[in-house]
Amino acid sequence: MRLAELSERSGVSTATIKYYLRERLLPPGRRVTATQAEYDEEHLRRLRLVRALIQVGRIPVSTARDVVAAVEDDSRDQLSRLGIAVEALPHGPEPDESAPSTAVARRTATELLRRLDWHFNLEIADSSPAFGMLVTAIAALHRLDYACDLPHLLPYARQAAQLAVVDLDLVEEFGTPAEQVEAAVALTVLYEPVLLSLRRLAEAEESNRRFGSDS
Amino acid sequence: MRLAELSERSGVSTATIKYYLRERLLPPGRRVTATQAEYDEEHLRRLRLVRALIQVGRIPVSTARDVVAAVEDDSRDQLSRLGIAVEALPHGPEPDESAPSTAVARRTATELLRRLDWHFNLEIADSSPAFGMLVTAIAALHRLDYACDLPHLLPYARQAAQLAVVDLDLVEEFGTPAEQVEAAVALTVLYEPVLLSLRRLAEAEESNRRFGSDS
Repeated sequence: MRLAELSERSGVSTATIKYYLRERLLPPGRRVTATQAEYDEEHLRRLRLVRALIQVGRIPVSTARDVVAAVEDDSRDQLSRLGIAVEALPHGPEPDESAPSTAVARRTATELLRRLDWHFNLEIADSSPAFGMLVTAIAALHRLDYACDLPHLLPYARQAAQLAVVDLDLVEEFGTPAEQVEAAVALTVLYEPVLLSLRRLAEAEESNRRFGSDS
Repeated sequence: MRLAELSERSGVSTATIKYYLRERLLPPGRRVTATQAEYDEEHLRRLRLVRALIQVGRIPVSTARDVVAAVEDDSRDQLSRLGIAVEALPHGPEPDESAPSTAVARRTATELLRRLDWHFNLEIADSSPAFGMLVTAIAALHRLDYACDLPHLLPYARQAAQLAVVDLDLVEEFGTPAEQVEAAVALTVLYEPVLLSLRRLAEAEESNRRFGSDS
């Protein structure tokens, strides 16, 4: 398809598509004349991922480029492409290694993964941005003297494990490994606000049950 | 206690405490001389909440002021103080009412709450920022043509309901209603990165189980 059709089918303006092409967020079209290129279903799919990252996830263009590069890297198998793409997503502030609370938090987080029997994560923990994000979050709770020990974290982690099953079931609905990697990254980003809003609504419901005047 | 002790015990610099006092994020101390004021445990506790909101949650000062005002509002009962304080937290972009995907998403979100039998939320849904956040998130998934129907959302919402039970159990560990309201708001903010990082770690674990070479 031509640029105009790609724009119409994706709902993204031709100017924005040209910008994404320049920024290497989309692979170049197949050149047919000096001024025209041909695009295909892969471009349409990639646009969907890029919009999820940039328009919904508000991820910087340079970060989105790293994510897309990992998704496209044919030299790796599906699992490591997926891992690298998700790791390229923003993870908030890194742990402050000079703070004593970080050392405590790192021990708590490591013990948590051990108790969950998450082998994979324990091996890669030190280099994993998601593990760093967890350490930062636990350190903040410690520093402010809010309870954040294993009995509080384990139920959270068990719920997260069940969410991951739901997430991966959805990913496996996609046909090819390439589509699955794209979907896994997009859904990681797109379902975060779903999860956070549902938690707040559930908290309101649970608060009403416990503290409401008709309870 | 004097300002210097409040600073030492809270780990917040006197300059920052003075700034928070000026911005009405902390109630004024009890004036003892023309230049000295006395602070108490309530100031220490409030500082903890303010740091959770501003330093960890990166919430703007004006928003934090609204949250604190709701927490302090003695004219309301605990449940409505809690609800108003959490509603004052940032909730991301509001639904774009001009987009057709928003109307679809609003129907999906309403049906979801109905199926969960969350009465409280169904009544307040239209004015709830958390409901708006959910509608925005579902609309984004619809617009990008990713599956986001009831069979996908229900397991998420059920996990959220279980997380809310864990959250409220933790809140009820605090002694007084005033402390509980403060803790509920702080923990809503502080546990969000815990949850998101655990979900990413769980996804890596689950991906490894399904796509790993030794699976």
